[in-house]
Amino acid sequence: MFTVCCEAHMTKVSRNANMAKLKAGYLFPEIARRRSAHMLKYPDAQVISLGIGDTTEPIPEVIISGLAKKAHALSTLEGYSGYGAEQGEKQLRAAIASTYYADLSIEESDIFVSDGAKSDISHLQVMFGSNVTMAVQDPSYPAYVDSSVILGQTGQFQKDVEKYGKIEYMKCNPENGFFPDLSTVSRTDIIFFCSPNNPTGNAATREQLTRLVQFAKDNGSILVYDSGYAMFISDDSPRSIFEIPGAKEVAIEVSSFSKHAGFTGVRLGWTVVPKELLYSDGFPVAKDFNRIVCTTFNVASNISQAGGLACLSPEGLEGMHKVVSFYKENTNIIMETFISLGFSVYGGKNSPYVWVHFPGQSSWDVFSEILGKTHVVTTPGSGFGPAGDGFIRVCAFGHRGNVLEACKRFKQLYK
Amino acid sequence: MFTVCCEAHMTKVSRNANMAKLKAGYLFPEIARRRSAHMLKYPDAQVISLGIGDTTEPIPEVIISGLAKKAHALSTLEGYSGYGAEQGEKQLRAAIASTYYADLSIEESDIFVSDGAKSDISHLQVMFGSNVTMAVQDPSYPAYVDSSVILGQTGQFQKDVEKYGKIEYMKCNPENGFFPDLSTVSRTDIIFFCSPNNPTGNAATREQLTRLVQFAKDNGSILVYDSGYAMFISDDSPRSIFEIPGAKEVAIEVSSFSKHAGFTGVRLGWTVVPKELLYSDGFPVAKDFNRIVCTTFNVASNISQAGGLACLSPEGLEGMHKVVSFYKENTNIIMETFISLGFSVYGGKNSPYVWVHFPGQSSWDVFSEILGKTHVVTTPGSGFGPAGDGFIRVCAFGHRGNVLEACKRFKQLYK
Repeated sequence: MFTVCCEAHMTKVSRNANMAKLKAGYLFPEIARRRSAHMLKYPDAQVISLGIGDTTEPIPEVIISGLAKKAHALSTLEGYSGYGAEQGEKQLRAAIASTYYADLSIEESDIFVSDGAKSDISHLQVMFGSNVTMAVQDPSYPAYVDSSVILGQTGQFQKDVEKYGKIEYMKCNPENGFFPDLSTVSRTDIIFFCSPNNPTGNAATREQLTRLVQFAKDNGSILVYDSGYAMFISDDSPRSIFEIPGAKEVAIEVSSFSKHAGFTGVRLGWTVVPKELLYSDGFPVAKDFNRIVCTTFNVASNISQAGGLACLSPEGLEGMHKVVSFYKENTNIIMETFISLGFSVYGGKNSPYVWVHFPGQSSWDVFSEILGKTHVVTTPGSGFGPAGDGFIRVCAFGHRGNVLEACKRFKQLYK
Repeated sequence: MFTVCCEAHMTKVSRNANMAKLKAGYLFPEIARRRSAHMLKYPDAQVISLGIGDTTEPIPEVIISGLAKKAHALSTLEGYSGYGAEQGEKQLRAAIASTYYADLSIEESDIFVSDGAKSDISHLQVMFGSNVTMAVQDPSYPAYVDSSVILGQTGQFQKDVEKYGKIEYMKCNPENGFFPDLSTVSRTDIIFFCSPNNPTGNAATREQLTRLVQFAKDNGSILVYDSGYAMFISDDSPRSIFEIPGAKEVAIEVSSFSKHAGFTGVRLGWTVVPKELLYSDGFPVAKDFNRIVCTTFNVASNISQAGGLACLSPEGLEGMHKVVSFYKENTNIIMETFISLGFSVYGGKNSPYVWVHFPGQSSWDVFSEILGKTHVVTTPGSGFGPAGDGFIRVCAFGHRGNVLEACKRFKQLYK
């Protein structure tokens, strides 16, 4: 695994045993590595990426204007500002509250701005510490599990079942409509739940989320709800967990501008921690999260925050909706392609992700076959958890021409 | 401390005992709170802040241009980019390596870009985990200790000595020239060391740092060296720990654009983890840090990174030097003021911080007296550790008029 020259100095610091538990590579860098290797092998191939959920379309001009205005102000004596409020700019917090939580009695002070959902997941794990137990949808976005491993909440990785010890994996598959059978789920302290789900693309219904909130309440669990894809919802599925009565006493919501505004590179997200959410001793979770926010990072760039504020203006919202609609058209094209080829296809409707079933096949084999034969990068379902094996995730972020070309190649491969 | 209505739902999740160990408030929000309370009491007072080390001068136009150019590119099809490399943009990493580490054989691949030093300190602590022991300069920037407490590396706070259990506090005071007497320092796994120091303003000499590196090597410790104020050095003190032979086998360096480029709000920093740094089992620390970087956050805003690249152009460097020179003139004005009033004054020469001695007085009392009588916000030395009591930190970030006015008021108060 690694070689050390006989004369090298070694410190006497023991490597963190939790880091050693992690499987070799975080999923997305591993895909990037395989993509690079493929491009070396086929230097002339036109490789198309429908793998990593990375936005591709320009940010609407009105949003960039707001953002650039702040940048230019920083070069003036009147407009310069340094450290902002640790919890985020007041105006931005207020705009998030009024845009996304208007009728849900979530207040500006419940909202903590950050540089993105991935960071906040890690911040929450640091706050919870190593003694909590956690449940996660299987499959799910790998940052939940990996951050849990790093913090020491889990046992070792068990190769036979492809699971870490002490994590409750809540299987989500076509048989249960991608909603876990809660009667078989053990109680944990923390439940991570993402809807619309990454990678399956499935959005939980109001009735399902009502059951989930009740389950958390009955078990005294804290639900960490990831609504990063809420703007992709087309039907009447809830956009926020706080649409469910009683959720404020059991849930935290993590969300982001990444996929809606094309801010994957600009970096801006937020987390809602309601004052009503209490630890077993009655201490408000929000107070500890506030301490984490003040002590371990410095919110997001003031320029990104200005961009976020521009996103939430009427013109900005309209711009975001247009971009989301564009990606949703891509989704339809991909779905129709795989349906026409006879595959069982899930997700898509409320999400930029299409979840394609290859029964009996290994996800990495399918990934490799598609990459090798069509030069299209997808994401192997097993990278999201053992229940994802036999699926691949095809992502609808991409220029239209690339999506059409990829679908043409899929049709050639599977005709 | 908190009251809960009899009917409130409480989860069954135990509060993280490490969070409960933390003293009430992180230092800087506490100062901001007291400042706000003061402003409520004296609504007409012209309050001047020489407290939090927050930059005040505009960012040079050439840097903002680079940054704004990237922002505008994001609204175009050709210029748009989403997720970048987790370790930071290649060009920026190369520019950091060639600007700051040209003759020190630190390579581009040793450099990890982030949204700032505070974040990276926390990322490093998460990587080290809860089983390491740590040493810290006393006084020092509170994020080292607080992040250690949060990760569970420490014992309880001991009120009688104002220290957390299991942390080795390395006293730095006028008697030892602000460099710890290493013969009295116990071995720890990690040693945090900041030079030029925040808050004392003292820069360690080459000879002192050579001893420190040898101390770390002899003990098998990892040195986490914070060089965030390196550009303020006027004499021949090392700007980087890697100027010391052998440091690559024992040290990590954390640094930032915050104070040099006025990026406190823009957010950009970096951490150097040399490949030569190994855990006791020979595993490279950089490999684990790379995993942390890939899994727990997403580098810094691509716009901030473009700004960083502009900072490191010849014109950007010249612009940064001008701003730093301006703050250094402020420092001189503050130092001369306190010297003329008969105080013992430290720091300043290589740093934007002036460390003023009030022997026998409590720092918070001095802080309150200065705020109450002059409406000037400073920082109480005891907020940085028990050895800081009896001192206040006066910070040279500020418009010239405000610095002059503050000094006039100091002269009236202490004449």
